[in-house]
Amino acid sequence: MYNLLRGKKGLIFGALNEKSLAWKVAERAYEEGAEIVLTNTPVAIRFGNINELAQKCNTVVIPADATNVSEIENLLNETMKHFDGKIDFILHSIAMSMNVRKGRKYDNLNYNYLNKTLDISAISFHKLLQSAKKIDAINEWGSVVALSYVAAQKTLYRYNDMADAKAMLESIARSFGYIYGREKKIRINTISQSPTPTTAGSGVKGIGGLMDFTERMSPLGNATADEFADFCVTIFSDLTRKITMQNIFHDGGFSNMGMSLRAMTMYNQSLDNPIEPKSWE
Amino acid sequence: MYNLLRGKKGLIFGALNEKSLAWKVAERAYEEGAEIVLTNTPVAIRFGNINELAQKCNTVVIPADATNVSEIENLLNETMKHFDGKIDFILHSIAMSMNVRKGRKYDNLNYNYLNKTLDISAISFHKLLQSAKKIDAINEWGSVVALSYVAAQKTLYRYNDMADAKAMLESIARSFGYIYGREKKIRINTISQSPTPTTAGSGVKGIGGLMDFTERMSPLGNATADEFADFCVTIFSDLTRKITMQNIFHDGGFSNMGMSLRAMTMYNQSLDNPIEPKSWE
Amino acid sequence: MYNLLRGKKGLIFGALNEKSLAWKVAERAYEEGAEIVLTNTPVAIRFGNINELAQKCNTVVIPADATNVSEIENLLNETMKHFDGKIDFILHSIAMSMNVRKGRKYDNLNYNYLNKTLDISAISFHKLLQSAKKIDAINEWGSVVALSYVAAQKTLYRYNDMADAKAMLESIARSFGYIYGREKKIRINTISQSPTPTTAGSGVKGIGGLMDFTERMSPLGNATADEFADFCVTIFSDLTRKITMQNIFHDGGFSNMGMSLRAMTMYNQSLDNPIEPKSWE
Amino acid sequence: MYNLLRGKKGLIFGALNEKSLAWKVAERAYEEGAEIVLTNTPVAIRFGNINELAQKCNTVVIPADATNVSEIENLLNETMKHFDGKIDFILHSIAMSMNVRKGRKYDNLNYNYLNKTLDISAISFHKLLQSAKKIDAINEWGSVVALSYVAAQKTLYRYNDMADAKAMLESIARSFGYIYGREKKIRINTISQSPTPTTAGSGVKGIGGLMDFTERMSPLGNATADEFADFCVTIFSDLTRKITMQNIFHDGGFSNMGMSLRAMTMYNQSLDNPIEPKSWE
Repeated sequence: MYNLLRGKKGLIFGALNEKSLAWKVAERAYEEGAEIVLTNTPVAIRFGNINELAQKCNTVVIPADATNVSEIENLLNETMKHFDGKIDFILHSIAMSMNVRKGRKYDNLNYNYLNKTLDISAISFHKLLQSAKKIDAINEWGSVVALSYVAAQKTLYRYNDMADAKAMLESIARSFGYIYGREKKIRINTISQSPTPTTAGSGVKGIGGLMDFTERMSPLGNATADEFADFCVTIFSDLTRKITMQNIFHDGGFSNMGMSLRAMTMYNQSLDNPIEPKSWE
Repeated sequence: MYNLLRGKKGLIFGALNEKSLAWKVAERAYEEGAEIVLTNTPVAIRFGNINELAQKCNTVVIPADATNVSEIENLLNETMKHFDGKIDFILHSIAMSMNVRKGRKYDNLNYNYLNKTLDISAISFHKLLQSAKKIDAINEWGSVVALSYVAAQKTLYRYNDMADAKAMLESIARSFGYIYGREKKIRINTISQSPTPTTAGSGVKGIGGLMDFTERMSPLGNATADEFADFCVTIFSDLTRKITMQNIFHDGGFSNMGMSLRAMTMYNQSLDNPIEPKSWE
Repeated sequence: MYNLLRGKKGLIFGALNEKSLAWKVAERAYEEGAEIVLTNTPVAIRFGNINELAQKCNTVVIPADATNVSEIENLLNETMKHFDGKIDFILHSIAMSMNVRKGRKYDNLNYNYLNKTLDISAISFHKLLQSAKKIDAINEWGSVVALSYVAAQKTLYRYNDMADAKAMLESIARSFGYIYGREKKIRINTISQSPTPTTAGSGVKGIGGLMDFTERMSPLGNATADEFADFCVTIFSDLTRKITMQNIFHDGGFSNMGMSLRAMTMYNQSLDNPIEPKSWE
Repeated sequence: MYNLLRGKKGLIFGALNEKSLAWKVAERAYEEGAEIVLTNTPVAIRFGNINELAQKCNTVVIPADATNVSEIENLLNETMKHFDGKIDFILHSIAMSMNVRKGRKYDNLNYNYLNKTLDISAISFHKLLQSAKKIDAINEWGSVVALSYVAAQKTLYRYNDMADAKAMLESIARSFGYIYGREKKIRINTISQSPTPTTAGSGVKGIGGLMDFTERMSPLGNATADEFADFCVTIFSDLTRKITMQNIFHDGGFSNMGMSLRAMTMYNQSLDNPIEPKSWE
């Protein structure tokens, strides 16, 4: 509603349904005056309702497997054709762990699954950037954002191999941010978002307790998907041109909390009744 | 030019002259639709030309010594009177080291000067926040920003006791951010800015070489004062409501660089002609 | 029991009674072959039983107020006289907040108390280092350690202005570590220790719940005072000569945990019975 | 020479020749009273002179490809047979990038090579830990160390995909450190070492200039391979039992330096003669 992105063109990965962070970002970017193109895998397109979003945003969906370099190149080329010009901003909101899905614990990983986790959740970001640079798909001062999580810094039980993938994702943002910045003035950042009740997030067992904890730990409470979209828009805009290679925490303060009174008050109820996990499930 | 701050009211500390970061922030905030009030010490008001800025921004200058609690309280009260309402955002851009000014090295500090450094450059931020909370001077979801520097994390020769002051300043942002967030939904952050050729910055001996180095290390180059102002405006806006207790690097990527090819190329010229400092001045 | 410190001479601040971290360090350093000198304030010497420790370690107690430069200089001179030589290692384990003691909350600080907190808990470390450098009291490759806490990075409710003091303390270790390293090859580090049931630690209200939480969060449990002493001895030894300007977490893994299954299991008991703090006490 | 590791049994990966960090660690661990087993790939065994080291340390070399789970399992079983007991400490010093070797820049990666980089330099660490846990190969309070580099946090030109691998390696240390700690009291850390003139290190183009820079930036100078071995021995010992999931910088202070006077003095020679890289090679 500020026209922060007027005249800008963006490509958005990872919208599945109206709960998705990417969905909210697409809506907000469009509201702020951007033209956008949506993309997701063919499976996700069938499974979700991204076409509805495309209609709302007056645009198209171009299917692509983000782990496949030639599909990415095709996507970028088609996107530029659609825009009749280069891209100004990109959101990468893609993550998947087959080890999590199949219930493999972190000390019992299937290494083919791990390779898939990395390929989908981290290397896809490199493939996107390398392809974009090769075909010169992004305008000078363009802005690329990938979605991260605090598990890249701190271990959370059950987050499993996704933690390692997020650590690698943030490293790719730095490594490629250096190169893309020096040569093309393009900035690359990750945003580390509160746990959010998306379809993907809800798949993590025990997420309810964790979200209650982070809500009470964070002085401003968990950041919602709508708030994520608001912040994303500022990072895509021309007002943040000298921020690059950073991971920015958008989490109500959680990442810098050691213990809040609210969370401690909840925890303390259990002090007289100490219990242990039944297993290291 | 986006009306990002329309209807908002801000208080800005530390504008001395047109080179000041605070000066640029005042101009940009005003452009973005905010009403502002300016403040500085009586000495700085005489020494600089803040009244010119006040005229441009159609506002007043209220003198205050930021180390004096009753002057801060008076400032906040006068500001609210001027606005006929509470404050939405505050910029704290205040720092001074008498040890630096007087040429005292870090291993020869005068401890009265150190206390002054801390009082002016860090504790003043706590006094401002405590006073504001006591008289309930800031609206819900208000945003407070203090200016920091990477010396809070990494040691730079000659930055002296200002490094310790900045480390403490960032800690205050976290500590008070927790309390002001949980009780009043107010967010507090620091922005760690590239070295900038302000009047204050230029006072640091040898700043020219350092600025050349950081320029060549940063893939996007040093961030300017104008760019700082742009970014500040986003942090004051409603689009960044869930960012708090953070220190955000606005520095063209410098903080996450270990070594760039450009800086190394410069450095390598000296490899055949190694020289040592004449003294640990 | 390894003779890790044979021939070395150390000065240890902050032993009050047998629960003190500094007490354990003194005992372990002595066991490992070091000669030591103990120091504390006159009040603490009366209040605790440091003389007992001196007897055990076959040494003396030299009283000194660590905030008073001339007393520190006298202490260093007396220590060198006692040793008939320079010092090889120093432990700084000194912290006190009058705001905490007097029940002043962080948004209601008394600024004279804050100055005292900083002077005792952080600036005293600078005074010690500056005095030692001036009178050349430490041997080359000497090792200086100060005790820190994770509150320097992450906010814990009720830790109050000690968080800011610890942030400053860690900054001083970096700033002075640079200078003392380049000129005299002396290394300066902080160790960030688990909450420990010392006399000082026990004074913090609600410490029991927090210690239960950190115990369950840390894969190896909280680090004890004895374990702290073991680690300290390695940092004083010749085996760690190239570690300087660092803050090392000795905490069973706590600092890098986001959420453990054990802590979550405790917390989850309260999910059906959400309660809020009665006040922001 | 302190018997710090008397009675302990260690497995050491990655010794190629007498310049190797792992070689020095093997020698020092043996000196400190440990029994050790050496391992490397068949190719490295032929290419280097690890058998000489085995003789010195009165032990055997068991060849294994660290990316192959069944070879790792065999190695662990053979090692336990050799020791007639479980293992107390492990050093993982393994890294290789085919992209670096083949001169592929970071914006022109071959993704098969990237997979190899990750498999050899990061995932091999997970495979080792997972295998060790499955066959219960490590004694309680055992200590596992992997070699890292500051490129995991900060971007250095030409370090290429190894930066992402090191970031992932450090994440694995945290993720597995949590699990192995809670269930078996085993600690896992990484040590981030100064650039060292090993055979592997020397392969990096332009390493000479960088090592001069880090030498002058670090107040204590670069850490040598011998000093690395000294420090490693302390982390393997019983004196550091509560340190886990950490990355510890052993680098003469480099990681916490922003700019030293010595490095700036060198750099400043070029200020009147600014030059640019001939290409982004």
